[in-house]
Amino acid sequence: MAMAAKTASFDGLQCPIPLADYPRIVMAHGGGENLTHQLVERMFRPAFQGKTCGAAHDGAVLTLPHGRLAFTTDSHVVSPLFFPGGDIGTLAVFGTANDLAMCGAKPLALSASFILEEGFEMEALWRIVCSMRDAAAEAGVKIVTGDTKVVERGKGDGIYINTAGVGVVPPGVDISPARIRPGDAVILSGDLGRHGIAIISARGDLALASTIESDCAPLARDVGAMLAEPAEVHCLRDLTRGGLAAALVEIAGASGLQIDIREEAIPVRADVQGACELLGFDPLHLANEGRFIAIARPEATKRILQVLGEDRARVIGAVAEGRAGLVTLKTALGTRRVVSMLSGEQLPRIC
Amino acid sequence: MAMAAKTASFDGLQCPIPLADYPRIVMAHGGGENLTHQLVERMFRPAFQGKTCGAAHDGAVLTLPHGRLAFTTDSHVVSPLFFPGGDIGTLAVFGTANDLAMCGAKPLALSASFILEEGFEMEALWRIVCSMRDAAAEAGVKIVTGDTKVVERGKGDGIYINTAGVGVVPPGVDISPARIRPGDAVILSGDLGRHGIAIISARGDLALASTIESDCAPLARDVGAMLAEPAEVHCLRDLTRGGLAAALVEIAGASGLQIDIREEAIPVRADVQGACELLGFDPLHLANEGRFIAIARPEATKRILQVLGEDRARVIGAVAEGRAGLVTLKTALGTRRVVSMLSGEQLPRIC
Repeated sequence: MAMAAKTASFDGLQCPIPLADYPRIVMAHGGGENLTHQLVERMFRPAFQGKTCGAAHDGAVLTLPHGRLAFTTDSHVVSPLFFPGGDIGTLAVFGTANDLAMCGAKPLALSASFILEEGFEMEALWRIVCSMRDAAAEAGVKIVTGDTKVVERGKGDGIYINTAGVGVVPPGVDISPARIRPGDAVILSGDLGRHGIAIISARGDLALASTIESDCAPLARDVGAMLAEPAEVHCLRDLTRGGLAAALVEIAGASGLQIDIREEAIPVRADVQGACELLGFDPLHLANEGRFIAIARPEATKRILQVLGEDRARVIGAVAEGRAGLVTLKTALGTRRVVSMLSGEQLPRIC
Repeated sequence: MAMAAKTASFDGLQCPIPLADYPRIVMAHGGGENLTHQLVERMFRPAFQGKTCGAAHDGAVLTLPHGRLAFTTDSHVVSPLFFPGGDIGTLAVFGTANDLAMCGAKPLALSASFILEEGFEMEALWRIVCSMRDAAAEAGVKIVTGDTKVVERGKGDGIYINTAGVGVVPPGVDISPARIRPGDAVILSGDLGRHGIAIISARGDLALASTIESDCAPLARDVGAMLAEPAEVHCLRDLTRGGLAAALVEIAGASGLQIDIREEAIPVRADVQGACELLGFDPLHLANEGRFIAIARPEATKRILQVLGEDRARVIGAVAEGRAGLVTLKTALGTRRVVSMLSGEQLPRIC
């Protein structure tokens, strides 16, 4: 496990579990009795300020504003746990809040479930919990319920975190690949590939002159602003595992339409491009944690680019009648090639 | 990993992933591209028949009946994966559906998130998925969204499953330790300890003459029937990790009241009692996966016992003004002792 610092406090905040007594996770932290109770009551609950059904119950009861419910989940197994621009806690919160946003929902509440490996450093856990608290505040969601399990040394990798999330889809919003139409614009919210390269470089597999930080960021505010005109936005998808390529292939397949994109229009930072060339990676397949595509009516393009920032977002292509499920890329050289999903694994444990 | 059978089909149903091509999980099953897609589209989605927002999106949109939302989560790391009376899939579904029931909610939908270890047998996964499908049908919930991650060999233990759940709390239902009152009856829904002993015996730590099966079962129907008179039921708690003892200590602490129970009233099967004596375990701390306590107005006792079955459920004690947070047990010998949470771990990875 990579840990940058070994001090007894993080960011000025003292770890609420006495490190002299419990410098590391022991099996009984998952046993459901005293030590589990201590972890929940001293660390998790005060950090997340979850309001639960009953003062000490493992479930939350929420009053929802009017609308349909969006519900999603992700387990996070990223390695290393800490990387430039974030850590597993940041990802766990933003990842699930962003999945809700991609349903057109306003994220409301998250659950947080920890699988801890016996021997995991208590201070690393505290540092991750602080990241989750800060990320939740930034994303405008509350962590309202959770669970803790401990597995024996050698049966995990420090910490795995599952977050599930609920949100409300406002009336009139209907986000789905089934809604995209020939002529729709494909809008990309920013540059590609930084999360993938940040993880590789944090693994020490790559000696880069400058540090490339993950792009991980909450997306719901941008999505909410786009959906001020709900009828204009047909489909949304964040570009995590599998990157832009997998997202487009899935949408083209689900909609029965063709999607054509242009390489020149896709922003990739020079340092990310350089790292890709060095490693033989294709930025289209690299994971991102703060980027998405919106497929929208062509007449909405200008408004959406203004909402997302004209310096960052780009129209990268369009939907066509064409062949169902086909995605093509017009290269910088003017040739056209098919974009497909990878059969193998480009980067394991990227999120 | 304990696997009872190695045949190429389970329960007459063929594994939908060709075992000749993929007898075991490989890293790319978690890569977010072709193999992940294959696993989701061929195995998980058909088994669970989840309706998601968009044909291939990682989130579900649900229309809720009127009421407040209950939201809960649990990660399941039980070892071994298969045991008499159930498996990790059964537990993952019943566990989370039961947590919703304990909030007074009618369970509606679950998420299912898998952390698979590289090399895990595809057929074991299929067997677990079938258990989840059957358990969801039995519990009356739908599995509507999910996630799959794969970690390297030696960084997991075959499979870990997180389930989160949403349900609706009907108007008038208010379940919380804060609502219990001196004089309330403490009702136990059935005999204690079978899940804990089933797990121990499945680990081979114990040579028992007869097989003790886990009590794992869905609880929402019983709870729904009890809550036909919502004002009568003050608090509910399932007796999982930490058992009856941890549940009562938590409730007594949260309510600021004392709870007194009688050992003689607590049903423990003779074979479970025998195993406990052999192992030095206390049935009060053993985990159950289909048992709960209801704390209710004393005048509701008769009706609740009828709902839960007079052959199974028992009044085991009462709430008293007494000392805040204290739980006492009147032993079969007539003495009274304090019931407390264990500081250590009785049985790791029980759920």
